[in-house]
Amino acid sequence: MRIALDALGGDHGPAPNVAGAAAAVSAAPDLTVVLVGDQPRIEALLAAAAVPPGRVEVVHAPVAVDMREKPAEALRRKPDASVFRCWQLLAEGAVDGLVSAGNTGAVVAGGLRTRKFLPSVHRPGIAAVMPTAKGRSVIVDVGANVAPKPRHLLEYGVMGSVFARKILGVDRPTVGLMNVGEEEGKGHDLVQKTYDLFRAGPLKDRFVGNVEGRDLHRGAADVVVTDGFTGNVVLKLSEGVFEFVMGMVGREVLGALDGEKDKAAAAVKGLLAKYHYSAVGGAPLLGVDGVCVICHGSSDERAVANALGVAARGVRERVNDAIVAELEALPPEE
Amino acid sequence: MRIALDALGGDHGPAPNVAGAAAAVSAAPDLTVVLVGDQPRIEALLAAAAVPPGRVEVVHAPVAVDMREKPAEALRRKPDASVFRCWQLLAEGAVDGLVSAGNTGAVVAGGLRTRKFLPSVHRPGIAAVMPTAKGRSVIVDVGANVAPKPRHLLEYGVMGSVFARKILGVDRPTVGLMNVGEEEGKGHDLVQKTYDLFRAGPLKDRFVGNVEGRDLHRGAADVVVTDGFTGNVVLKLSEGVFEFVMGMVGREVLGALDGEKDKAAAAVKGLLAKYHYSAVGGAPLLGVDGVCVICHGSSDERAVANALGVAARGVRERVNDAIVAELEALPPEE
Repeated sequence: MRIALDALGGDHGPAPNVAGAAAAVSAAPDLTVVLVGDQPRIEALLAAAAVPPGRVEVVHAPVAVDMREKPAEALRRKPDASVFRCWQLLAEGAVDGLVSAGNTGAVVAGGLRTRKFLPSVHRPGIAAVMPTAKGRSVIVDVGANVAPKPRHLLEYGVMGSVFARKILGVDRPTVGLMNVGEEEGKGHDLVQKTYDLFRAGPLKDRFVGNVEGRDLHRGAADVVVTDGFTGNVVLKLSEGVFEFVMGMVGREVLGALDGEKDKAAAAVKGLLAKYHYSAVGGAPLLGVDGVCVICHGSSDERAVANALGVAARGVRERVNDAIVAELEALPPEE
Repeated sequence: MRIALDALGGDHGPAPNVAGAAAAVSAAPDLTVVLVGDQPRIEALLAAAAVPPGRVEVVHAPVAVDMREKPAEALRRKPDASVFRCWQLLAEGAVDGLVSAGNTGAVVAGGLRTRKFLPSVHRPGIAAVMPTAKGRSVIVDVGANVAPKPRHLLEYGVMGSVFARKILGVDRPTVGLMNVGEEEGKGHDLVQKTYDLFRAGPLKDRFVGNVEGRDLHRGAADVVVTDGFTGNVVLKLSEGVFEFVMGMVGREVLGALDGEKDKAAAAVKGLLAKYHYSAVGGAPLLGVDGVCVICHGSSDERAVANALGVAARGVRERVNDAIVAELEALPPEE
């Protein structure tokens, strides 16, 4: 299979992308990576990397979208930027999927322009895997769709559930709705209507109802559905609180120790590595006809390689075939 | 001054409320607490507590609103429930403020029914104090108003800013808007319009723009404004991630130690106590003509006493006079 990698995406330019591609093809014999970016720079980096012959290709697209650029403006002013070229390759059938650590809004905007969605998907949503006390949960959407309709959230529940089954290996994933209280009738109009759709739809037996902020990391549901605004805040806040708490632990717990300080520091370092975003491997944009994985802007080689791995696995496990089948079981939109 | 306490509010019934009242009046010589609830039970508890004579009164209101009861139904079916009686006392001028650890929705609903708002306040909002790497921030709203208008958020910025100055002692508090990215133009219609209102209003010199989830606990702004849906998720999620991370630290860091395990455990315990909600002292419902402080449902004696202290301080520092003056400086609503 072939995955396009936006080699200009991310805070650190092509280096971690090229290194990540080299690591990913070494790990997956069925994978070819198409590096999309500034060809001379990429080839210089490739020459220094140990890449199995014929497993990495380069497409020249030297224009980058800046991390702070407005997506709509970027689309208008730079239609051939590397991230948009990745989408073009997908639309042409030249690749099976794409991975980018670039401007998330631009990745999503490129997808919306291409409109290469699966049948019966209204709007793609980004799924993020979060660690919980019970293992892992998927939260959809974390930023593709900040003002969704109830139907979109219902579709996110279905797609997240297929992702949890196929990629996280959860047999019958439970689905919950992020809300401000557990009881039915809580929250604004969007969540109340979405709640009713889940109760009436094919996921009703696995729908656990509303999930509050404090229950998310307790593992209240395998799949947590929310609008892209709340989901984005949840994802970044979780990272922020983790960083904040580990900082305090570093100061106040390690600071209280003498002889065993090094032992504790090693355990803290282990926790940081285990829960660092790069261990997760990027967030898939579900609903695209193909595979699209979005990485953290500060992704290093390991994060890029993991994201390519997730993309390859998405193709291999035919996640989209299962999504299409399950979406077809939804009642028609009213 | 006189503060009404909903003695039936909270998960643990009257005991922590009565004990909290006793502790609060002992700490503040100018405070009288009016315990509103089941008179015989309260008097039995009072007899066992050491309360300075004449500093605690009792109003008989034996009906409680359940923690899971729908606020609108409770208002209709139990108009004389203890929490609503607290609001009646405030409306009659019999008390200067009220404190409740009961059903948050019912506390807010009682306030909305009484409509005892400050002039030019459209909708009250709940302010919560959160620990950050730089000290403390106030986030408004954390659940009173899940579908606000931009004007409401502008008013939350003003009210939160007065609270930060008067109660947290921040000289010129900065104000930020919770959003999915730092750049102007990010997010849905509500935050885009609110952004413009802040840029054009009297807080413009202290408005730091958008604040992302990962920057909140870094202390990106002294006051963070958001809709009550997002704010409620933020508050509870912060608590949940804190609990999750401290659980891992307990297992994996303490578990790695031998001789100094007790020292590390004491430091962990210290952190838990320092950042436990009961140290914060309840969340004020800003915009009410009077003082209203809402506590966590699982509040213990210390949390109730702290909340009564916050309420008393709000009266003493004339927070509302400053709020009214600053709201008058806002441009008229379009």
